[in-house]
Amino acid sequence: MHESLEKLKARLAEINDLNMAAALLSWDQHTFMPSGGAPARGRQLATLARISQEKFIDPAVGRLLDDLLPYGQSLPSDSDEASLIRIARRDYELALKVPPQFLAEFNIHIADSYQVWAQARPAGDFSMVRPLLERTLDFSRRYADFFPGYAHIADPLINLSDYGVTVSALRGLFSQLRARLVPMVRTITAQEPADDSCLRLHYPEARQLAFAEEVVRRLGYDFSRGRIDKTRHPFMTKFSLGDVRIATRVREDFLGEALFSTIHEAGHAIYEQGIAQVYEAGPLGEGASSGLHESQSRTWENLVGRSRDFWEYFYPRLQSVFPDQLTAVSPEQFYRAVNRVERSLIRTDADEVTYNLHVMLRFDFELALLEGSMEVADLPEAWRQRFYNDFGMVPEDDRDGVLQDVHWYGGTIGGAFQGYTLGNIMSAQFYEAALGARPEIPSEMRAGMFGGLQVWLTENIYRHGRKFTAGEVVELATGRPLAIDPYIRYLQKKYGELYDLN
Amino acid sequence: MHESLEKLKARLAEINDLNMAAALLSWDQHTFMPSGGAPARGRQLATLARISQEKFIDPAVGRLLDDLLPYGQSLPSDSDEASLIRIARRDYELALKVPPQFLAEFNIHIADSYQVWAQARPAGDFSMVRPLLERTLDFSRRYADFFPGYAHIADPLINLSDYGVTVSALRGLFSQLRARLVPMVRTITAQEPADDSCLRLHYPEARQLAFAEEVVRRLGYDFSRGRIDKTRHPFMTKFSLGDVRIATRVREDFLGEALFSTIHEAGHAIYEQGIAQVYEAGPLGEGASSGLHESQSRTWENLVGRSRDFWEYFYPRLQSVFPDQLTAVSPEQFYRAVNRVERSLIRTDADEVTYNLHVMLRFDFELALLEGSMEVADLPEAWRQRFYNDFGMVPEDDRDGVLQDVHWYGGTIGGAFQGYTLGNIMSAQFYEAALGARPEIPSEMRAGMFGGLQVWLTENIYRHGRKFTAGEVVELATGRPLAIDPYIRYLQKKYGELYDLN
Repeated sequence: MHESLEKLKARLAEINDLNMAAALLSWDQHTFMPSGGAPARGRQLATLARISQEKFIDPAVGRLLDDLLPYGQSLPSDSDEASLIRIARRDYELALKVPPQFLAEFNIHIADSYQVWAQARPAGDFSMVRPLLERTLDFSRRYADFFPGYAHIADPLINLSDYGVTVSALRGLFSQLRARLVPMVRTITAQEPADDSCLRLHYPEARQLAFAEEVVRRLGYDFSRGRIDKTRHPFMTKFSLGDVRIATRVREDFLGEALFSTIHEAGHAIYEQGIAQVYEAGPLGEGASSGLHESQSRTWENLVGRSRDFWEYFYPRLQSVFPDQLTAVSPEQFYRAVNRVERSLIRTDADEVTYNLHVMLRFDFELALLEGSMEVADLPEAWRQRFYNDFGMVPEDDRDGVLQDVHWYGGTIGGAFQGYTLGNIMSAQFYEAALGARPEIPSEMRAGMFGGLQVWLTENIYRHGRKFTAGEVVELATGRPLAIDPYIRYLQKKYGELYDLN
Repeated sequence: MHESLEKLKARLAEINDLNMAAALLSWDQHTFMPSGGAPARGRQLATLARISQEKFIDPAVGRLLDDLLPYGQSLPSDSDEASLIRIARRDYELALKVPPQFLAEFNIHIADSYQVWAQARPAGDFSMVRPLLERTLDFSRRYADFFPGYAHIADPLINLSDYGVTVSALRGLFSQLRARLVPMVRTITAQEPADDSCLRLHYPEARQLAFAEEVVRRLGYDFSRGRIDKTRHPFMTKFSLGDVRIATRVREDFLGEALFSTIHEAGHAIYEQGIAQVYEAGPLGEGASSGLHESQSRTWENLVGRSRDFWEYFYPRLQSVFPDQLTAVSPEQFYRAVNRVERSLIRTDADEVTYNLHVMLRFDFELALLEGSMEVADLPEAWRQRFYNDFGMVPEDDRDGVLQDVHWYGGTIGGAFQGYTLGNIMSAQFYEAALGARPEIPSEMRAGMFGGLQVWLTENIYRHGRKFTAGEVVELATGRPLAIDPYIRYLQKKYGELYDLN
């Protein structure tokens, strides 16, 4: 191997080790850490992040990358070595543009902002966070300005999580989607919603967790390279390709919480577990983008986990775990309950049909704030108006309105939300392609076998890690660029069976 | 504050953050990590250790320490600032003498050696580890040679865990102790051992853990700054003064395992939790030495946890947790069972009376190996002979002989064992002083109140962290240097009641 490549890999592995250590500290913070550990833990995480950043923006890394430029260009661009050099260079150039001092100040600001939000939300008091959010907007604009030449000020922020995706492309996709969704939501929500009372009985925690574990094991989550713990806000995290963990939560009065949260996070984890082992500890050894990641969590949660095929296998098993609650509930009743559509205030609780309207509201507001056509102070009122337009209802207070999501209060404004809807759109396009290639997938699922789907997804998406951009993966895996029609077809077929869509 | 002191503290806090992160990675490895995480975890731990070491031996640290030398000397030597400067300098000078290349090679060797031992022990095959142990001996001698001018070649190795303790001092203490213990062991083991069959019934795990938790909570272990998990080999670890954790293990066929392991580790943890908060993240914020630490784990485990006072409070509670097993067992029977003395092969299972003979065997062998008067190849036979002399019995194979302890196979030869016996000797001297100062401690304990003892220990030992050496702490807390007579008095009084000692 090229000597500089050996050196570069060693340096990147060292940085990866620091980042993975930080991920473990953060996992522990959200699962097992006693309250007394909090102050030191914050400092330890900041130290690891700083050292990792210092080691990455070291000019020695730049020299190695310069050395390797001709070598990388001499190789086929989809080779592992060329890809490693290309992606490492992309990350390096991006990191170099942001001054460490800016990052440090921003991280301190964000920690403050998060703390205030954690109090402002239960109090429903937007005025508490408003000045902080104004500073966040300022930081976000300054961040974008480190990347002069952007077409839209949000583009550099979107690049952080969905590399190569632009406002221009998103506006095209989202406006098409919106045009189809708004009438669909109106038509469906004018009808009687499905009865989901069977999900809202008492379901003891231990049996819920055991069932969720059985489900994700069968879907393909490898417990020899992972584990499930409890937490407040479900998440997936990774300490190496051999250790990809899930944290979930349980509500004893609602069966949908633990089950679908666990499947969702397992979807993220199955993606990470499927990345080629040779990418371990290097820049290719991660999911390609926020949108691509979300496409996989949503595939396993919704396209699989809320499908008739899935429940044909799992519902009798679930009934045997909860006989008192479910013996009298027919498979059809249950299927309708887990696919109930309704207008609701909270994004994370929203069903498949309404979900993207929540996302697009936030996306549009991010653009307006960054462009300067909306003021932070106007957010609460703008939220209520837009919500009324889209859903025909208004949140009672800001708790269930502008204060509901942590994203803006714990990160930048811009780049935080587009991945959710991109993921939904992608998920249907991938799934259609998978069914085209392996028409036996639905019958396999009805028999409790999910390996056929996992193999296709691994082969076409997972194994590549970050070698390709999400857009490239879509084209490679499905033969065409991302488009909304598979997603619309999916929604129309599924919900056309459950509701009158005309 | 002195500007260089500010800088030094920031640098040391950064290094501490790295070390604490490594401690969490190691804790996770021994509690929750799935097997697939192992390869990356080893690499991550090595990376953190290397970066921490690089940052510590940086000449910039030396310059700060040189800057601070006159300032430190101008302050009272027991002030926090003078102590911080003194201890940081001591650590720095020690670290500087060991070349990073040596450390790296040694760590790789030790990881190999540990792996081979893990297979050799169950196989009872000393020949597998012999060549590795010979290299370990060579590494240990080379380590000592980085500190020319030692009085005994083991002194620099002992300094690693028991700073300031010399072979010369240990030989004095240990030969006195041995002269008293050998006849005591002979006298006691010639008598019928206590019946401990009541400990060897079926005790369900969950109730054992719940009881152990109740006990250590009441002893003073603060769960808002700690937690208990399960593991293979019990340990205490720390991620900050606000997060000091225990890991324990359970045997359902032996009540003594979980209970006393948990109390032992809680003893270590109560010590760490008692260190002054102002020492957080600095060189003073740890226990002073291996011996001092062991004195506290043994105090809580043995002097408290195996005392009549302790069981007067806890035995009725234990009976109510395990009524089927213990209702018919009298308090006296139970007290005798947990204080059964017998000749046994395994150090970690040994009772209070025989324990130190196990330790002294190992200590003497370490000296002989380092001095060159014994060869590694001679160890198994020498073990059998010495064991026969001390205990009148011989292990059937090397599994229960020279292969039983991990120490030599996972670290240096020299410095590994003296702390255990030092701890026992210290524990009695501290305890006698505590009882002298607070004669009400036994009656408090009989009422389930352990705060009086904890306050004395915190005030006189724990809060100081590493400000003083262990020897200084003994003198400060008890008014005289370490001596064996309180320990002999303790054993004679306690075991004179249970056995005929004449």
